Amino acid sequence: MTVIYKKVALIGLGLIASSMAHAMRTKGLAAEITGHAKSAETRATALDIGLCDSVFATAAEAVAGADLVVLAVPVGAMGAIAAEIGPHLAPGATVTDVGSVKQAVIDAVAPHVPEGVHFIPGHPIAGTEHSGPRSGFATLFVNRWWLLTPVPGSDPEATRRLRLFCEGMGAKVDEMDAPHHDLVLAVTSHTPHLIAYTMVGVADDLRRVTDSEVIQYSAAGFRDFTRIAASDPTMWRDVFLTNKEATLDILGRFTEELFALQRAIRLGDGDHLHAYFTRTRAIRRGIIEAGQDTAAPDFGRVAASSGDK
Amino acid sequence: MTVIYKKVALIGLGLIASSMAHAMRTKGLAAEITGHAKSAETRATALDIGLCDSVFATAAEAVAGADLVVLAVPVGAMGAIAAEIGPHLAPGATVTDVGSVKQAVIDAVAPHVPEGVHFIPGHPIAGTEHSGPRSGFATLFVNRWWLLTPVPGSDPEATRRLRLFCEGMGAKVDEMDAPHHDLVLAVTSHTPHLIAYTMVGVADDLRRVTDSEVIQYSAAGFRDFTRIAASDPTMWRDVFLTNKEATLDILGRFTEELFALQRAIRLGDGDHLHAYFTRTRAIRRGIIEAGQDTAAPDFGRVAASSGDK
Repeated sequence: MTVIYKKVALIGLGLIASSMAHAMRTKGLAAEITGHAKSAETRATALDIGLCDSVFATAAEAVAGADLVVLAVPVGAMGAIAAEIGPHLAPGATVTDVGSVKQAVIDAVAPHVPEGVHFIPGHPIAGTEHSGPRSGFATLFVNRWWLLTPVPGSDPEATRRLRLFCEGMGAKVDEMDAPHHDLVLAVTSHTPHLIAYTMVGVADDLRRVTDSEVIQYSAAGFRDFTRIAASDPTMWRDVFLTNKEATLDILGRFTEELFALQRAIRLGDGDHLHAYFTRTRAIRRGIIEAGQDTAAPDFGRVAASSGDK
Repeated sequence: MTVIYKKVALIGLGLIASSMAHAMRTKGLAAEITGHAKSAETRATALDIGLCDSVFATAAEAVAGADLVVLAVPVGAMGAIAAEIGPHLAPGATVTDVGSVKQAVIDAVAPHVPEGVHFIPGHPIAGTEHSGPRSGFATLFVNRWWLLTPVPGSDPEATRRLRLFCEGMGAKVDEMDAPHHDLVLAVTSHTPHLIAYTMVGVADDLRRVTDSEVIQYSAAGFRDFTRIAASDPTMWRDVFLTNKEATLDILGRFTEELFALQRAIRLGDGDHLHAYFTRTRAIRRGIIEAGQDTAAPDFGRVAASSGDK
């Protein structure tokens, strides 16, 4: 693999940035990696485990001379960071981000990007429930989608180069406009996360009733919800605040359908339930065929079965 | 491992029964296994892959001379099966079931169990999204809970023997009364499944808007939901119809909390969201400490990472 960027600046050193660092090292995509994180402890960790060649207390210092700057902070923090680094960006540099919401990031960041610097927003659809500089791993992006939402006037050559870089880390890259991205993600990620958070919260209340049994007898459905609901609170707060309209729209459709199923249960309408559950089974097959998951039985089986190997 | 039952009759040959067959074979818990399934094709498969030593077109024939009879059919079918086999049960035999709801099964089955036969309802909290006689595997129950809900007057010695049998298949066994079981499972399994089914249904509607992107860009949250929503439609229809009160109760609490979070999003109350998401993160740690899941990053990572090994 050949070097695609001479100097990559990672602003924010959590799960995504640390995974990018590992992937860049493994594939030799960057000659030099600088980093910035608010926390001194995080910066020290990034040096200890070799995520960055150098770390800086300010984002402005970290981006000096970088030909790729990656904003990997919570969506709500992007604007302030952009304002800080704007004057220090090298001419011809590319600025991208990894936020889960795109229009809000464009609105917050674009105004601070000077002439001659290419701003190409992006979103790797990959993650785990863990966070922090030690949570990254080089294969996080392998076979995952990395969506780019170029803004009007983005330089095609700069976009092509960023695309090569993402593909170099193992991702599949696609381009779409920001509002469309935000709607699709509200369906596939944002609303499901809110629902999982809610269900786990309900169970947490009930723990006072059923003691530790809710955890003890945690079955498939709930166990998977808790994994989702263990994701980073700050990141998700910002997602819902910045993708408000799309999330509220999908939530509205969700409660409509939930009430219809609730009514079917109350009325004992088994045919309605069976037909609905049969329909949803099909979409699962679609996801497996799309290569976004395996057909292997899971539901927490992986741990137990590998224990028997 | 020593033989615990001379002749075990499996009534219904789906995921749970076929996994029990594999586990019994592996651990030598039963000298002989007979089986019954409605479908001739399923019966033929059960013989082909060696789940049973013999299969029968009627449940009555299958239970003849068995000292353990396992009802592994959907909850809604338990009553009719019990009525059919009642007169053919051997004196001193134990009858158990693997239904996800317990009080409804007791109401349907107990009246048909003759004097001198021990009825001990049970529920292995284990499963995958697959179903059918080929979906079983010997380790399905390893380190999973198997809840027994003995009815008043259950013979302690028969219960002790059934407990040994479940532990022999690798399960952890606990006992509780049926109504309490049904409430706990409504929280940890039944309601989460209904919610997952609903979210996948909403996405399925939206596919007409966003084409195949909902599947294509299927992110963590949604992908995990589709796995849950791929579970057997008949089994789940019966669960909701037979655990109606508890499920509707928990659903009521769920929508209350969801509306509170929805309101926080609409009002832009980030503190409320952050506090809520931080609270739910803790319950995840509890589940990992309870040994019901691992801390390994998942979210569909397993497939990709193992590909790099």
